[in-house]
Amino acid sequence: MTTEATTPDEVWRNPHAPVADRVRDLVARMTPQEKVAQLQGVWVGIDAVGEMAPHQHEFAVAPRDFDELTRYGIGQLTRVFGTRPIAPEVGARTLARTQRQIIEASRFGIPAVAHEECLTGLAAWQATVYPSPLCWGATFEPDLVRRMAARIGDSMRRLGIHQGLAPVLDVTRDLRWGRVEETIGEDPHLVGLIGSAYVEGLELAGIVATLKHFAGYSASRAGRNHAPVSIGPREFADVVLPPFEMALKAGARSVMNSYADNDGVPAAADATLLTDRLRDEYGFTGTLVSDYFSVAFLHKLHGVAAGREDAAALALAAGIDVELPTVDCFGEPLLEGLCSHRVDVELVDRALTRVLTQKVELGLLDPDYSPAPAADLDLDDEESRALAREVAERSIVLLQNDGVLPLTGKRLAVVGPRADEPGAMMGCYSFPLHVGVHHPDVEIGVEVTTVVEALRQDHDVVFARGCPVLGGTDDEIAEAVEAARQADVCVVVLGDQAGLFGNGTSGEGCDAADLKLPGRQEELLEAVLGTGMPVVLVLLSGRPYDLSRQVDRLAAVVCGFYPGQEGGPALAGVLGGRVNPSGRLPVSFPGAGSSQPSTYLSAQLGRRTEVSNVDPTPLFPFGHGLSYAPASWVTAGCEEREWPTDGFCTVHVVVRNDTDVPTSEVVQIYLHDPVAEVARPVRQLVGAAKVDLEPGETRTVTARLHADLTSYTGRAGHRQVDPGDVELHVGTSSANIHSAVKLTMTGPTRRVGFDRVTTPEFTTSP
Amino acid sequence: MTTEATTPDEVWRNPHAPVADRVRDLVARMTPQEKVAQLQGVWVGIDAVGEMAPHQHEFAVAPRDFDELTRYGIGQLTRVFGTRPIAPEVGARTLARTQRQIIEASRFGIPAVAHEECLTGLAAWQATVYPSPLCWGATFEPDLVRRMAARIGDSMRRLGIHQGLAPVLDVTRDLRWGRVEETIGEDPHLVGLIGSAYVEGLELAGIVATLKHFAGYSASRAGRNHAPVSIGPREFADVVLPPFEMALKAGARSVMNSYADNDGVPAAADATLLTDRLRDEYGFTGTLVSDYFSVAFLHKLHGVAAGREDAAALALAAGIDVELPTVDCFGEPLLEGLCSHRVDVELVDRALTRVLTQKVELGLLDPDYSPAPAADLDLDDEESRALAREVAERSIVLLQNDGVLPLTGKRLAVVGPRADEPGAMMGCYSFPLHVGVHHPDVEIGVEVTTVVEALRQDHDVVFARGCPVLGGTDDEIAEAVEAARQADVCVVVLGDQAGLFGNGTSGEGCDAADLKLPGRQEELLEAVLGTGMPVVLVLLSGRPYDLSRQVDRLAAVVCGFYPGQEGGPALAGVLGGRVNPSGRLPVSFPGAGSSQPSTYLSAQLGRRTEVSNVDPTPLFPFGHGLSYAPASWVTAGCEEREWPTDGFCTVHVVVRNDTDVPTSEVVQIYLHDPVAEVARPVRQLVGAAKVDLEPGETRTVTARLHADLTSYTGRAGHRQVDPGDVELHVGTSSANIHSAVKLTMTGPTRRVGFDRVTTPEFTTSP
Repeated sequence: MTTEATTPDEVWRNPHAPVADRVRDLVARMTPQEKVAQLQGVWVGIDAVGEMAPHQHEFAVAPRDFDELTRYGIGQLTRVFGTRPIAPEVGARTLARTQRQIIEASRFGIPAVAHEECLTGLAAWQATVYPSPLCWGATFEPDLVRRMAARIGDSMRRLGIHQGLAPVLDVTRDLRWGRVEETIGEDPHLVGLIGSAYVEGLELAGIVATLKHFAGYSASRAGRNHAPVSIGPREFADVVLPPFEMALKAGARSVMNSYADNDGVPAAADATLLTDRLRDEYGFTGTLVSDYFSVAFLHKLHGVAAGREDAAALALAAGIDVELPTVDCFGEPLLEGLCSHRVDVELVDRALTRVLTQKVELGLLDPDYSPAPAADLDLDDEESRALAREVAERSIVLLQNDGVLPLTGKRLAVVGPRADEPGAMMGCYSFPLHVGVHHPDVEIGVEVTTVVEALRQDHDVVFARGCPVLGGTDDEIAEAVEAARQADVCVVVLGDQAGLFGNGTSGEGCDAADLKLPGRQEELLEAVLGTGMPVVLVLLSGRPYDLSRQVDRLAAVVCGFYPGQEGGPALAGVLGGRVNPSGRLPVSFPGAGSSQPSTYLSAQLGRRTEVSNVDPTPLFPFGHGLSYAPASWVTAGCEEREWPTDGFCTVHVVVRNDTDVPTSEVVQIYLHDPVAEVARPVRQLVGAAKVDLEPGETRTVTARLHADLTSYTGRAGHRQVDPGDVELHVGTSSANIHSAVKLTMTGPTRRVGFDRVTTPEFTTSP
Repeated sequence: MTTEATTPDEVWRNPHAPVADRVRDLVARMTPQEKVAQLQGVWVGIDAVGEMAPHQHEFAVAPRDFDELTRYGIGQLTRVFGTRPIAPEVGARTLARTQRQIIEASRFGIPAVAHEECLTGLAAWQATVYPSPLCWGATFEPDLVRRMAARIGDSMRRLGIHQGLAPVLDVTRDLRWGRVEETIGEDPHLVGLIGSAYVEGLELAGIVATLKHFAGYSASRAGRNHAPVSIGPREFADVVLPPFEMALKAGARSVMNSYADNDGVPAAADATLLTDRLRDEYGFTGTLVSDYFSVAFLHKLHGVAAGREDAAALALAAGIDVELPTVDCFGEPLLEGLCSHRVDVELVDRALTRVLTQKVELGLLDPDYSPAPAADLDLDDEESRALAREVAERSIVLLQNDGVLPLTGKRLAVVGPRADEPGAMMGCYSFPLHVGVHHPDVEIGVEVTTVVEALRQDHDVVFARGCPVLGGTDDEIAEAVEAARQADVCVVVLGDQAGLFGNGTSGEGCDAADLKLPGRQEELLEAVLGTGMPVVLVLLSGRPYDLSRQVDRLAAVVCGFYPGQEGGPALAGVLGGRVNPSGRLPVSFPGAGSSQPSTYLSAQLGRRTEVSNVDPTPLFPFGHGLSYAPASWVTAGCEEREWPTDGFCTVHVVVRNDTDVPTSEVVQIYLHDPVAEVARPVRQLVGAAKVDLEPGETRTVTARLHADLTSYTGRAGHRQVDPGDVELHVGTSSANIHSAVKLTMTGPTRRVGFDRVTTPEFTTSP
């Protein structure tokens, strides 16, 4: 199919030439068809006989012969591994063969960038399913998350994948939103800290990390997926954007737009956001890929484009470089616009240049490029599973305990729909659940030990499900009650079925109208509580639920979110005492009668109780988490009284382990700014560090905080550091403060930008 | 106490001199103390022996001797009639005596402006309680509301009151908000149309109308009173501001700020809003009064001011002229700031000039001014009650009817906590409920016939309450079930107890966490439905509630909101068929599982059901309402195919009454703009007219719509009219469209401002 010979001494082929020269040379050689082809994804899937075929979807062009699609080249291959349970070796071989086909079929022989989902590990069959992002947040351990992401990236690289569509950096704003499970939590600092670590890990492995969803999606009205976002520019700048800024500094090479409109402007058509902000202000030079179908949504759903060409032109002008998942607006419509000069060739070349620059940097245009996969394609090896276990163990949050935990030696009744269900441990972007939606009978692909199975290894267990996640019968609840009566302690494992669009109780499109436990699970819990037995509630869910009606009667509450394939043993480890829990809540649990949206990050009038009979006080606050052997706080204080608006202050916290087991503490530093140009959050996390303590050990945690950490968007619309009094609240949760350090910021008001300091320097010394 | 003689030939005293000259002359003569005093309200109340005394409140300065307060003059007297049940004659006499005291005590002898609440009629004892604003909206009849407001204004003028703190022009954004009952509904056009009519009526009577709450309050996060408002500038301009613009054009002479912060900036400290927008862009020249305590809130709750002087300076600079309700920040703190030159005297003079200009225009500074009240002080005369009845009858909305209504001749069981309760008819700003909070044993002051009493006049009625609004017993529910079994039809009257701050289920500070009927009322309804008897649900409430679980089993549903003191007979009139219902919903009723915030005014992605398992489709849509004898739609169409962006189009609707009783139709015209620069609402009301039809009558409703009605805030941030295709959807509700007229807007994009055309011209001809 090659229509013109190329010679090996052309600049673009020369690996020693500067990248920009190679790209410029290549752009100049390309026809409109070839240019546009590089801006397209093609959604392919490996079919049952190991062949690659275009994926069918209502928003894609009619599936065509793959040969026809490859004729002018292909920008990206979408989710080769994401459609069916295909063995890694088969998938990698097919991908390599497809790349050779693309190379051979087109004039310049440019391979496609192959992207995959990787939010809870690579979303491919037989790949380790790691804990979901809420768990990453709960660890408060960037180093651990970085290691996990590096391992995930390594598995992708071995298969021939170049780009991963993670992390999600949306800051939780409304717990009803189905995608809360994909977020790292409700605090922008924590999301940025952990999200950046994930980016570093993935990029360390050579995989292009993709920040999503830029930006505002999580604030969709009433927590409804895709619903308009009502948000002011200051809240947008101070809550939504910071994690993206931090992760861009961490080296992310791709960004994906949000589906929603912000105050009427869909992100995919927002040049102010995607170009002025992202490119000009932040200096981002990577690729901007569209969230699936969101270019088409501009005319089909948002009503800001008159048709597909118009949608393509708008998205391209806004700054989108690649249309995913597959050829639609950036196909014939864009080509027609380009050829008829309704679309400016410079806009096409701008996107093309970014795409080709990334391909050059990935080595895809080098003469020695080979699509051959690695020899070792075990995606679920022992080391990966151990890491998945470690993340799970470090993320589990002990919310409440009257002493019933650890459970050592007791006869257990284990009930609840999530107790003996492998899928209970997994979020909607794990391969088993994502693909299981279309193929409900696929094997899960990895070994999963359920909570019941894990508990059985050390305990005498009677199990009765009680009810499914949704629905159920009186008889089944009665069986669970009977089981509870026979035991010393009853462990009730409740939560969500992650899914997609109506297929689950949490996950993309699985929004909730309220925060009651789904189905009859609250009824089951009440029935078991009615026995008078001590009840330990274990929550495996994509969001916090309202436990306010039962909390006073529960002996203990453990939150696991979706702890991944090793979640069962990790939970059993916590319940049995082998693991001393050290997770802290990245999202608040709602209090009695509280309503959404509501996060801890609220100005005073959003939290006061005397002006409304709806009390927003959370049941378990952001940052909360208990330990079986808590650390003792010896001292906490600050060296300085004054803090220059361009300088540092230093906070010391001395913690000691007075117990006879290893323990951990998460030292949390919150900013309280009593007077500012605008209403500021009562408390806002500016730094957190987890410190591990051996029995008898004392450690000093020192945080050096730059004044930039106090910055906020003032009246003039830019971020600034003000002089005046501030307080640093140091404690173990957003509601449990050990010390309030008063400081006076001195010096002039300083305007700060993208290059500001966003994290404190932490050091820990004996 | 007069410290300096004034001579009658001074310019400021000369009623023939131009207003500006008089004010300028007076400002120049005043000391700082005298100036500041004019910017203060003083909260007084008439005590049990008919004496005026300062009101005590935590946010006010310690109550002082009234003589001391009058020494330099007083800007405003706050709610003289609002504290206790005082007979109108006593109150008016005391007010007049107080004014004389103020005149005599101060150097210039300037009387205070006396303001009162008047949202559901004058909030004074023995004054007619009219239907609440949701009812005004439900009438869709500006002429009727104008007449009502004129009558309310007349009652105020007779007492010596100058200013009324109404109407509330907040557009409902979240049904959980307690003050939904004070709004005119969820559509800005309807709120503006009806709110303007109210303003015209009040101002016709010589009373200063006060638009509140400027602006954004109703979008408080999660519907919690005072909570921060997350809203973008476009939504703010297109939803929140239009009613204020319309009402300012209608002649309102005062504006009150919102309590909440918008994207961090409290309205009371927002110069962009209160000065740039309101004064410079809208040309408003009246007074801006602070919502009660909201200046103090700047430092006490919002954290944008360091103390009381700072709060005063911020509020004054933003544009607030008068601090209400009483001396706090605008007292000593402002005086200190002024005398120490930390507060610019020009800012004080700016506010003072506005206050004095209004006082001059009210005639308060004329030599012949007399504070004597009118001779006739009957505030609840027959004509007022008839008008209250008319508004109530025209506002009741028949939501559903399987033919059980009208009830003629049937044996009735009437149950429910709102059936035999005079307060059930009244919103939280009615005198009986507002004052009843502090004095629960006050007599209601006006004659009220409950629903049960009214029904008894034509029916054989058995009554059983069933349960109170909150709480209740199984026994009482069982009694209600027993009563239902004995009758042919059961009328269940459910709803809210309006109140203040925890004192009710709807009203200021009485926000809801969800939209379930309060207390055990849903249980009562289910119990009565369980009898199998036909059940008619009558809702007397401050907000729509979720009826989705019962609606299919209800024989009929009637919504009265708070129909005022004549609501009982009005409802009985509708139930019995004497009144053919003609009200239409100004707010949507939520559907099953729907979540808040949600109004009909949403872009497509806010309403689609395939992207989320939360379905936002309302149970009863905005604009919905049935009739016992509905009008027939003969034709609906438009003369033009093209609509110039600076011109008119003309829509004709022919409706006919084929029945043998008088009927009414509300012709509703919605705009649908398929492609625009930003995502626009699927449908948005641009015009509505109620037309009455005698039996056999045919009428043609002609609406002349200016292109300005299609305007919206585009990408550039200003309101504009675009060329391109639009549709006008003509129908009987936002979901029931009879005709969709397609038009092409022709001509250039036009920028439009405050002076744009905001309402169609309607004519009705036989």
